[in-house]
Amino acid sequence: MVVTPLAEDFTLRVIGRVHSPFHEKFGIPRQPGLVKVPATLVMLPPFDSPEMFEGLEDFSHLWLTFAFHACLEQGWKSRVRPPRLGGNVSKGVFATRSPFRPNHLGLSVVELADVEITHGRVRLHVRGADLLHGTPIVDIKPYVPYVDSVEGAVGGFAGEAPDRRLRVSFTLSAEQVLARHPDGERLAAQLVELIALDPRPAYHKENKDTQRTWGMRYAGLDVRWRVENELALVTEVVDQGQENQ
Amino acid sequence: MVVTPLAEDFTLRVIGRVHSPFHEKFGIPRQPGLVKVPATLVMLPPFDSPEMFEGLEDFSHLWLTFAFHACLEQGWKSRVRPPRLGGNVSKGVFATRSPFRPNHLGLSVVELADVEITHGRVRLHVRGADLLHGTPIVDIKPYVPYVDSVEGAVGGFAGEAPDRRLRVSFTLSAEQVLARHPDGERLAAQLVELIALDPRPAYHKENKDTQRTWGMRYAGLDVRWRVENELALVTEVVDQGQENQ
Repeated sequence: MVVTPLAEDFTLRVIGRVHSPFHEKFGIPRQPGLVKVPATLVMLPPFDSPEMFEGLEDFSHLWLTFAFHACLEQGWKSRVRPPRLGGNVSKGVFATRSPFRPNHLGLSVVELADVEITHGRVRLHVRGADLLHGTPIVDIKPYVPYVDSVEGAVGGFAGEAPDRRLRVSFTLSAEQVLARHPDGERLAAQLVELIALDPRPAYHKENKDTQRTWGMRYAGLDVRWRVENELALVTEVVDQGQENQ
Repeated sequence: MVVTPLAEDFTLRVIGRVHSPFHEKFGIPRQPGLVKVPATLVMLPPFDSPEMFEGLEDFSHLWLTFAFHACLEQGWKSRVRPPRLGGNVSKGVFATRSPFRPNHLGLSVVELADVEITHGRVRLHVRGADLLHGTPIVDIKPYVPYVDSVEGAVGGFAGEAPDRRLRVSFTLSAEQVLARHPDGERLAAQLVELIALDPRPAYHKENKDTQRTWGMRYAGLDVRWRVENELALVTEVVDQGQENQ
């Protein structure tokens, strides 16, 4: 067999887009699966045909290969400072899962909740995605446990799941906004989990600036909170109207 | 944050090439890790700088994202017939790891054996790759066990590792060629494992054509064998001279 060597670059087509409650990078968990946030993969024609997905429903999890599209313009770096190391130790970019990598490809394992077929077009409902709304998908593969789950693998500086969690509470006014929201109970539970992971940059976790307000847009909500020691207080939730989920 | 949507296609650069003993597709295990075959990832400039890999040696395993370059010309299919199902049941391409997929991206976990730095350029030595010689690499990521190893994941039709193995023996003349080869002992052990996996297409496994000879090129050897019931007999090994490893 003679294999023609691939030229030094080649072109990918976007096969689908992520519809996710994350409308900005701040607040997105740093790995998939930490919070069971729902998201939808809207497949683009001709990659939305049901026959292309037949049998996928027998798998519990999927690999998504995607582009870190919000980081494309910033290019790539040889060395990065992983948040897991407090942001003050640098590592080679290929020793990390940083978005600032050559080719800007990301890889996330997500739980498959449902294969929806409407008007002959496929949407995949998943849980646990750590992906920005609009993220372009370039491949979907089944998670094959006997191959992908490596027994005894050693994880370097990212050896264990982060176990630190903040306690999260809401002011009365924030609670009331969520109580009026048709999906408020589920969203409140998701916000508790997301904020408990403490998305603040590491160098802020050390200081005592308890007056500083942090904010994220999530599922059409504008959410603000302050942190004092191990407690996060959600001070304000503004319902900007249903955008996505 | 305003994110410019990515156009419907974008271009990847090849960051490295696989140097592997597999010089043809026939005989390559159908998943990584089944046989600890050694391979080398030769990084291409500017992606071969040691600082880009600093810290990688603390991880035991890597994810390789690569292009199935030998299948590019054949394009993609909506449905494929996975070898695991005997080649006579079809599944949607996204429910498989088939190379005949949109974008032709592959994903393999391999064991990291060594990060070699020679004259300021990086080569990664890995084990267990199921990749053809010359395969273009587009990303390298560390395997992060607490994220990538999903407890309780269900693997559909590929739920368990294939456990059927052939017994493999050599004719005297084949044994003698390996005995004269400087790396013959190691290569013989690898050939035993590779042939034991029985790379024949499923529809041949049923029939009794014990006269048919199968062959593969592996690490500069031209290897031929026949199969009768559960026994493979390696009838001929020709040393074509050291090519790779």
